[in-house]
Amino acid sequence: MSNVYDHAYNLEKALRESTEFKNLKESYEAVMNDPESKKMFESFRDTQIELQEKQMQGLEITDAEVEKATNVVEQVQGNQLISRLMQEEQNLNVIIGELSAIITKPLEEVYGLDERNQ
Amino acid sequence: MSNVYDHAYNLEKALRESTEFKNLKESYEAVMNDPESKKMFESFRDTQIELQEKQMQGLEITDAEVEKATNVVEQVQGNQLISRLMQEEQNLNVIIGELSAIITKPLEEVYGLDERNQ
Repeated sequence: MSNVYDHAYNLEKALRESTEFKNLKESYEAVMNDPESKKMFESFRDTQIELQEKQMQGLEITDAEVEKATNVVEQVQGNQLISRLMQEEQNLNVIIGELSAIITKPLEEVYGLDERNQ
Repeated sequence: MSNVYDHAYNLEKALRESTEFKNLKESYEAVMNDPESKKMFESFRDTQIELQEKQMQGLEITDAEVEKATNVVEQVQGNQLISRLMQEEQNLNVIIGELSAIITKPLEEVYGLDERNQ
């Protein structure tokens, strides 16, 4: 089994050395190094976490909260550094999704899920 | 970037050749080759999917449904072939969870999540 983990570490290293990962890291650092963008990004992230937690607990989200969240999103979309970061996040998420699909394919085959979908 | 996908395919191959994966496959085939176990397993899976779908849609799960699900789980636990399959599933899920943690570590580092947890 150590073999499987060796391959996972190789994949982690390749991901870390990829252009997409380096771009994400640079974009994140650019946001963090700009005080105004940093504050805006943290406010955006906190709002998202807050709403997610309420949703998971089945609590109602008030109109005021929806309005606040909409405002934060609009602010963030108007900020070039954060927009770039979000684009880089999206790029990397697509790749991670594809990697995950490759790795879990054997499991789907066991359960015949690949055949059923054909 | 092709490099990242090459490593993912290597990992997939290693996972497919692992003892844990082979055990899962054998256990699944053993269940499918025993008509009584197959029927029981499919009933268990259908009940799970049904309840999950209701939960996701926010629909109420009735007492009768809870009782039915409990019965199916008890039946399944008493079946040696299915119990073995569920144990093998659990083993492989632990490994997949560990692999996933290795691969997504660079992302956590970007966002400083590893430092916050220390």
